[in-house]
Amino acid sequence: MTETLISPPATSLRIDGGRLLRRIRELGSIGVDPATGGITRPGFGPADQEARTYLIGQARAAGLTAGVDAAGNVIMRRPLPDDSAGQRTAVLMGSHLDTVVNGGPLDGAYGVLAALEVLQCCAEAGLETPYEPVAVGFANEEGALFPQPFWGSMALAGRLDALPGEPADHHGRPLRKALEEAGGNLDALGTAAWSPGSVAAYLELHIEQGPVLERAGTQIGVVEAITGRAVLTLRIQGSAGHSGTTPMEGRRDAMVAAALVVVAAESISGGQDLCRVATVGHLDAYPNTPNTIAGAVTLTVDLRDTDPVRLRSAEEAMRGALRRIADRTGTGITVTALTRSEPVATHAPLRAAIALSSEELGLSHLPLPSGAGHDAQVVADIAPIAMIFVPSIGGVSHVPEEDTHPEHLVGGANVLLHTVLRTLGHTPQ
Amino acid sequence: MTETLISPPATSLRIDGGRLLRRIRELGSIGVDPATGGITRPGFGPADQEARTYLIGQARAAGLTAGVDAAGNVIMRRPLPDDSAGQRTAVLMGSHLDTVVNGGPLDGAYGVLAALEVLQCCAEAGLETPYEPVAVGFANEEGALFPQPFWGSMALAGRLDALPGEPADHHGRPLRKALEEAGGNLDALGTAAWSPGSVAAYLELHIEQGPVLERAGTQIGVVEAITGRAVLTLRIQGSAGHSGTTPMEGRRDAMVAAALVVVAAESISGGQDLCRVATVGHLDAYPNTPNTIAGAVTLTVDLRDTDPVRLRSAEEAMRGALRRIADRTGTGITVTALTRSEPVATHAPLRAAIALSSEELGLSHLPLPSGAGHDAQVVADIAPIAMIFVPSIGGVSHVPEEDTHPEHLVGGANVLLHTVLRTLGHTPQ
Repeated sequence: MTETLISPPATSLRIDGGRLLRRIRELGSIGVDPATGGITRPGFGPADQEARTYLIGQARAAGLTAGVDAAGNVIMRRPLPDDSAGQRTAVLMGSHLDTVVNGGPLDGAYGVLAALEVLQCCAEAGLETPYEPVAVGFANEEGALFPQPFWGSMALAGRLDALPGEPADHHGRPLRKALEEAGGNLDALGTAAWSPGSVAAYLELHIEQGPVLERAGTQIGVVEAITGRAVLTLRIQGSAGHSGTTPMEGRRDAMVAAALVVVAAESISGGQDLCRVATVGHLDAYPNTPNTIAGAVTLTVDLRDTDPVRLRSAEEAMRGALRRIADRTGTGITVTALTRSEPVATHAPLRAAIALSSEELGLSHLPLPSGAGHDAQVVADIAPIAMIFVPSIGGVSHVPEEDTHPEHLVGGANVLLHTVLRTLGHTPQ
Repeated sequence: MTETLISPPATSLRIDGGRLLRRIRELGSIGVDPATGGITRPGFGPADQEARTYLIGQARAAGLTAGVDAAGNVIMRRPLPDDSAGQRTAVLMGSHLDTVVNGGPLDGAYGVLAALEVLQCCAEAGLETPYEPVAVGFANEEGALFPQPFWGSMALAGRLDALPGEPADHHGRPLRKALEEAGGNLDALGTAAWSPGSVAAYLELHIEQGPVLERAGTQIGVVEAITGRAVLTLRIQGSAGHSGTTPMEGRRDAMVAAALVVVAAESISGGQDLCRVATVGHLDAYPNTPNTIAGAVTLTVDLRDTDPVRLRSAEEAMRGALRRIADRTGTGITVTALTRSEPVATHAPLRAAIALSSEELGLSHLPLPSGAGHDAQVVADIAPIAMIFVPSIGGVSHVPEEDTHPEHLVGGANVLLHTVLRTLGHTPQ
């Protein structure tokens, strides 16, 4: 990255808002359930294959090249007369094509279609740039059918060299076959990897999926970091007993212990501010009948922060609370599983470029963390990354109601365009 | 009841302990699952029919009369030469024949077989008594198959006159047919009712099903009252959201609210001592996934006390706590169902007779509440009642491990015998 990243003056180039919104509508009609309005396009399922075909068709109709790599990622470029495509350092932009079950039309899809739109603008403007803009539609980020989330970005970052066995979906159907149908090749995953020097920057435009921008009345979010996460799966072992005949004294009530864990988790973030958010979303009690003291409870504590030191402190504080709760309730509390993902910081010069581009376009912006995971955090292994957020109506995502105002969708794509232009080292008049 | 209830001196009469223990063993082999050792004899199921046949056979082999009333209760008497059976006021003793699914050998069965044993002792001793001793095996107290618990005792107390429709089991099988197979008659339930003046006392011997006697090292429990119960089924309505992207501020987390309800319920009994026990045994969260804030939770709060005023105060305190928790968490908490059963006090002269009988037999005793429900609480509608408890090993019941030391089983049956003799107004030399 060089100083040219933030070089003025502003460009008058704009994306074609009507074209972007039309494509969002069209892609959003693939995999839709007429009953709920929800979209179900799990990665490598039939609707995902249809979406992939649609995207490639749109890119080719726009005069771009579009191909599928070994991992099933759709890679789109400008056709270059000297056949030099892929020879220059890339500025990569994109997101994922797949959805969760009964999700919305924007998560992933918006970032992919905006990347296509920006690429098409660059092509139509005939820009000559030191770096090559490349748009990517990542495969299977959600992992809703084949439980290998971040599949496409992991392949691109060279992290799928050694697969543990034959990946399969929840029904046992092999990924090998579905990947072939998508144009990929399980035996050549290594060819999907990009070397660290080959990518100057990765930019991902995405809906916020939370309420911060909407509440603040701000149009653009400049992501400071993608949150890290520590998920503790707990088993609390108490003693079951008749709720009428067992005196309170001497009870080992796993439900009471679980309740204290929920309260402690909430306090670790809400009261003590040791991490950004803390949530118990899952809790199962056994035998779970009204007149029996719970003999056991399983639950998950989900702690998130963008600062790795704070995240580790919060996890330690939670473990201390678990020891105290076990002592107080006479129960046994064990951490049966622990999933940690480290926070990933975005690249400061890219953040500055996003902020400047927003200002040039007359759009308000604020820095914020990404609470959810994104392909960008994986691509960060091989390139500087940044993310641009636009407001989510009602702060919701992964539901049929997922939506963003059209002017915010267009504004976000223009910020992506201007940031890409700065990053390419080219600021046209 | 008269002063003769507690008249000394002590009798030298004793039950036949070997015979009682043999019958407990034999009845306990009906409906047993060889894999778990658990007993499954739900009321009016095939194993229950077999148990009924066994009981009637034992009674008749002992020279007693045994019949089945319209509700399926087994009624056992001494044969009287002048055909005066049923003409005199009865001292009723018994419990129920049916079990829960995968239960133990003593809950109900012990009380029925001890009543048979006491009746047989009275017959063998040729006692002439002002009141007639009658043993009863109540039908379907647990309601494990046909969800009409306390069926037999309710019929005896005249509370099944107006049935709401045709009772059926969980699979839709009509009770009418199963009842016929047991020797009952759904169209003649009124004939199973005993008039209030016809029963001088009802005595039920039962395992404690809790740990109090065992912990105290005491042989006999004199039940002061059968606990009342207020069960509040709650629905907590919050807002679902992504656990990573939704800031703590402004969350309406139904799981946090539910945890505060569990803690409040525990405190209403354990800390504030507003009622004897309080339990949340059932809790379901929605959507119940680790990375989603719970949008809704349903749970039950089970409050019990033997004092109706304390029980009502505890319920009021709980409702106050619910209002505060709803305010604090921004959730909506509604009581979607409320089941109340009033406490039932036992009869003081009968309690005194049990205590005196225990002392004569050299058995230690203490007063205690019954935390579980029993047929006695229903029979209380038409007669003074009392209950005798013996220790449960480990305080457990409704499980295959349900057990009581043989000397406690024999001791309890002798206390029943002596209490019945006092109640009959006859204390032989």
